[in-house]
Amino acid sequence: MKAFELAQFGLDQLKLVEREPPRPGPREVVVKLRAASLNYRDLMFCRGVYNPKAKLPAVPLSDGAGEVVEAGPEVTRWKVGNRVCPIFNQGWIDGGYSADKAGATLGGGDLDGVLRELAAFDEQGLVAVPDRLSYEEAATLPCAAVTAWHALIVSGRVHAGQTVLTLGAGGVSVFALQFAKLHGARVIATSSSDEKLARMRQLGADETLNYRACPDWEREVRRLTDGRGVEHVVEVGGAGTLAKSVAATSAGGHIAVIGVLSQGPGLDPIPLLMKGLRLQGIFVGSRRMFEDMRSAISQGGLRPAIDQIFPFMDIQAALRHMERGSHFGKIVIGF
Amino acid sequence: MKAFELAQFGLDQLKLVEREPPRPGPREVVVKLRAASLNYRDLMFCRGVYNPKAKLPAVPLSDGAGEVVEAGPEVTRWKVGNRVCPIFNQGWIDGGYSADKAGATLGGGDLDGVLRELAAFDEQGLVAVPDRLSYEEAATLPCAAVTAWHALIVSGRVHAGQTVLTLGAGGVSVFALQFAKLHGARVIATSSSDEKLARMRQLGADETLNYRACPDWEREVRRLTDGRGVEHVVEVGGAGTLAKSVAATSAGGHIAVIGVLSQGPGLDPIPLLMKGLRLQGIFVGSRRMFEDMRSAISQGGLRPAIDQIFPFMDIQAALRHMERGSHFGKIVIGF
Amino acid sequence: MKAFELAQFGLDQLKLVEREPPRPGPREVVVKLRAASLNYRDLMFCRGVYNPKAKLPAVPLSDGAGEVVEAGPEVTRWKVGNRVCPIFNQGWIDGGYSADKAGATLGGGDLDGVLRELAAFDEQGLVAVPDRLSYEEAATLPCAAVTAWHALIVSGRVHAGQTVLTLGAGGVSVFALQFAKLHGARVIATSSSDEKLARMRQLGADETLNYRACPDWEREVRRLTDGRGVEHVVEVGGAGTLAKSVAATSAGGHIAVIGVLSQGPGLDPIPLLMKGLRLQGIFVGSRRMFEDMRSAISQGGLRPAIDQIFPFMDIQAALRHMERGSHFGKIVIGF
Amino acid sequence: MKAFELAQFGLDQLKLVEREPPRPGPREVVVKLRAASLNYRDLMFCRGVYNPKAKLPAVPLSDGAGEVVEAGPEVTRWKVGNRVCPIFNQGWIDGGYSADKAGATLGGGDLDGVLRELAAFDEQGLVAVPDRLSYEEAATLPCAAVTAWHALIVSGRVHAGQTVLTLGAGGVSVFALQFAKLHGARVIATSSSDEKLARMRQLGADETLNYRACPDWEREVRRLTDGRGVEHVVEVGGAGTLAKSVAATSAGGHIAVIGVLSQGPGLDPIPLLMKGLRLQGIFVGSRRMFEDMRSAISQGGLRPAIDQIFPFMDIQAALRHMERGSHFGKIVIGF
Repeated sequence: MKAFELAQFGLDQLKLVEREPPRPGPREVVVKLRAASLNYRDLMFCRGVYNPKAKLPAVPLSDGAGEVVEAGPEVTRWKVGNRVCPIFNQGWIDGGYSADKAGATLGGGDLDGVLRELAAFDEQGLVAVPDRLSYEEAATLPCAAVTAWHALIVSGRVHAGQTVLTLGAGGVSVFALQFAKLHGARVIATSSSDEKLARMRQLGADETLNYRACPDWEREVRRLTDGRGVEHVVEVGGAGTLAKSVAATSAGGHIAVIGVLSQGPGLDPIPLLMKGLRLQGIFVGSRRMFEDMRSAISQGGLRPAIDQIFPFMDIQAALRHMERGSHFGKIVIGF
Repeated sequence: MKAFELAQFGLDQLKLVEREPPRPGPREVVVKLRAASLNYRDLMFCRGVYNPKAKLPAVPLSDGAGEVVEAGPEVTRWKVGNRVCPIFNQGWIDGGYSADKAGATLGGGDLDGVLRELAAFDEQGLVAVPDRLSYEEAATLPCAAVTAWHALIVSGRVHAGQTVLTLGAGGVSVFALQFAKLHGARVIATSSSDEKLARMRQLGADETLNYRACPDWEREVRRLTDGRGVEHVVEVGGAGTLAKSVAATSAGGHIAVIGVLSQGPGLDPIPLLMKGLRLQGIFVGSRRMFEDMRSAISQGGLRPAIDQIFPFMDIQAALRHMERGSHFGKIVIGF
Repeated sequence: MKAFELAQFGLDQLKLVEREPPRPGPREVVVKLRAASLNYRDLMFCRGVYNPKAKLPAVPLSDGAGEVVEAGPEVTRWKVGNRVCPIFNQGWIDGGYSADKAGATLGGGDLDGVLRELAAFDEQGLVAVPDRLSYEEAATLPCAAVTAWHALIVSGRVHAGQTVLTLGAGGVSVFALQFAKLHGARVIATSSSDEKLARMRQLGADETLNYRACPDWEREVRRLTDGRGVEHVVEVGGAGTLAKSVAATSAGGHIAVIGVLSQGPGLDPIPLLMKGLRLQGIFVGSRRMFEDMRSAISQGGLRPAIDQIFPFMDIQAALRHMERGSHFGKIVIGF
Repeated sequence: MKAFELAQFGLDQLKLVEREPPRPGPREVVVKLRAASLNYRDLMFCRGVYNPKAKLPAVPLSDGAGEVVEAGPEVTRWKVGNRVCPIFNQGWIDGGYSADKAGATLGGGDLDGVLRELAAFDEQGLVAVPDRLSYEEAATLPCAAVTAWHALIVSGRVHAGQTVLTLGAGGVSVFALQFAKLHGARVIATSSSDEKLARMRQLGADETLNYRACPDWEREVRRLTDGRGVEHVVEVGGAGTLAKSVAATSAGGHIAVIGVLSQGPGLDPIPLLMKGLRLQGIFVGSRRMFEDMRSAISQGGLRPAIDQIFPFMDIQAALRHMERGSHFGKIVIGF
């Protein structure tokens, strides 16, 4: 079977190889992958920035969807033909995050990722594809959508009448916008592109801010919330935006800390204290969160925003496309 | 000023009287009431069933809306002309329920209710009317809507993808349906009237069940949820329906216990234990809950379902109308 | 290897049999059991009351402790020689209770129990014995102690300054007393025996009530709490005591519903509603709860209260001893 | 009556003045203050660092205890002779922190503080002194003890078996140590003084670390927790210690962000995310928290650690003593 492997770090080191097809253990299933999607983490991993000590060669990419083609003799959760997504962290089934759940993520150096035709997974490490979604759509979910769900619904317990701030137009932010609207919340979305902001409004954003045109966007956010600030920030910006996000949050508010995109001075703890803020670090989520989100997506008829679908062989072009940062929503690989 | 007083228990004992207009204390405002709404509690109170030891004469009705017409010298939260609703429990501003918050409800024997032209309230005991709602619409909120909000959003933390069961077509149930849909949940609604069920579907109910036609409705609820049962029940039925509601709830599920409508055998605790259920008694809610709900209503453009508006002088007819139980949503008194 | 089997329901039907020694699957370990303990559920199971449809023959008893004597080739969590307890519900590792976690309890008809010399368990279904506890002490933990921990620490979030009410001197109640004191709470303990109450005081109970001598004990509980009632009840009594427990609980309080011991009229929902109470059904708990409790026991030096240790061959006598109800704490079987 | 006022910023600008005795409003009481205590905030306030825009003259100090000597005609909560502490934030009675609760703290520029013989407070803004505590002991509670309670019990929900890290020997840290032990947790305490660490051990600290002798104390904390890190940090250090505190915390752990004591680079958000940490800014707490803590202190017989008691007239010496940082526990002013 075909796979892309990274034998050394570097985007251009990603090479197509032929591997032995996997055989399922007694409680494992083999999945024929049909689509994958990219996260910024994949770019960082290939460059050697995300996990410089990762053992190579490694198959990158955490997010995929496919079909069960073989099941071990003790498997009870799946049958051949089921449409499934592997979960991002194969060790996190339920409950809160803890140390014993670390070290089992896909495509980041712990375990081989999904950029291959076939892969064996423990039967516990899969979730059914939501009704009516294609493989390409389902492949967008494991990292970005679960992160957004964990941030807003699990950590944030967002409800109607609250205001959510999203930053930029990457996968997590667009899912956060969709989930916030699904729960009746108001959304203020930022981006550096008016075109992307227009798409955000189509997806339901109530207010949009171009942070290039309005560098003091945290003030504008406060102005749009009668001086109070928002209840929730889905903070994908990292060190470069965190201080502004803190300033844009209301007393007693919640910031889901997700991002590593930008550089900047570290966070000053004093405003956290004076405003009684809660910062929750979000590292994707559990299978339970994915299953709950799956019900919401199936029932709400929500469709992931796909920027572009690249063929399997064009993975390099897909990663370069992500690198440019001009995408809206998810970049998908169709197998 | 005019008021209806109950000098003895009995629906026909409700008499129109002339009272001295109230003068505001230093931190009080006087509200000119413009509308009120009925709850089943009002019927029970007038009959002497709700609080047989209540000191009479008393002005009944907890739910109203009106305009601030005078403010004491130390008042900072309101100005003359503000449109407001008094909160149901004048002693519950924020935080969880506790003994020190009991004994300050309107129209149930603690404090005089809103069936009068003018009433003085502590400035802490009021909430602004949601944007775009009329006084008649706003008067439906203090008891029924806050109860439904507390049940589903505060106690239940309902989210998209979950299923909510509502019983009957009274005020709490209709608000629960609306709030559940606002948060992306699926709703199974029951009633004894196909006509009311049709209105439930118009308001968004995903499934409807006529409990007359289908006395084993708890089985049908399980069937509609792949055998699991619902995540939340808004239990307004009381002793007569609680056992069925327990049977209709999924393992780990939540039942908001609100109702006193029907008689029946008490609850057997064994299924609670075996299914790990949570029963939360809901006695309306806090000002904070009302304020959060107010934001959700304003933002979501939600409109209360009003059954019929009776003139102030027809309070007896309005109570008789509630007694018959044929209403859908709230019965309102226009002043 | 030796095992006790129930081929038909009835205490005297429990027969010693010889079975093939278990062989571990790839991810299983074989445990040589060294002690077990009794719960009231075991008595009900043997009588055919707990699960009349259970497939027989079955090995009863959920609670045991022993030593790992063999490990399958893929096992990573355990080594031969480790001291372990099987968890009560082999399907509940982490997170809240849900339907997909049902159907995997030990000794109740789902899976064979621990009244046998050797048993194979999935490596996920075991917890390490707390430091310094003997096998006899450790065997008391899986059902009763985890139930008490779930009730007070997980569901109740008990803290210092709160008051906890315990009923009777069974295993759950004695552990609840110990855990409440470990968290700085005040304990009011009830029993029908002054001798047992004296032992409760030795274990730290602040107040004790003989419910025979004081049938209106709910009033006495309120008197001891300045009229308010307690914050938490560990309700092991069931239908026969629940109404009194409700009356003994403060507004906004919490009742952990555990018990099935007594008969009585069902629960009237009205006081739940008027006092805003929370009733949480507790069906033992997860491996995570057991592990957290294990840390607390190890660190706090807490020792389980053992009533009496019966030899393996005297299981009938041990069950008869439980039937009489005169025990204090746990009845243990030493292998 | 006598008061100390700050007419300009600067420690030596604190001047004794004569003021008119306060008269209670209808719902106010006048308290004759008998003791006060110092927090680092008081030092910063006097220097003009805490709130440079504060309107002067102002009476500093937030924490005091005294006796009710006069009550307004509508007061129901207190009687003359009651022993009380004013709460730190007069606007935060119950529930979570929010913007409408800001702007009403004592001694920080919002409202005059307690460094005066008599002060009028709204009857809602007081808590009863815990049983058996002297005025000097009670005066240590409003800021430091409530902060520690909020951090560990409310935000952290600390329980037995968890490990808590405290930094230094100031008031918050010593109360955190005492509350953690009261709930059965294990405590690792740090200080730069072996003498203070010895006192920490007397108060129950399980492990102590001299951070001067061991600058890499975060590694030592991980070593003492089998490589995992602690569940809770009571972070009083601020920017200078936060990165080390993050490194000392276990995956899924909780850091209560309280401190402003030290300078340093800001916080890098990446470890928050990768370890799924929660940072909760703590700005003292509500009256409800104080009341809950009061019950715990009364019941547990806990006594605040007092460093030294200075006479009212020696306030300058007391502030200089705090400035040197050699104190252990609270510095008290006896009136």
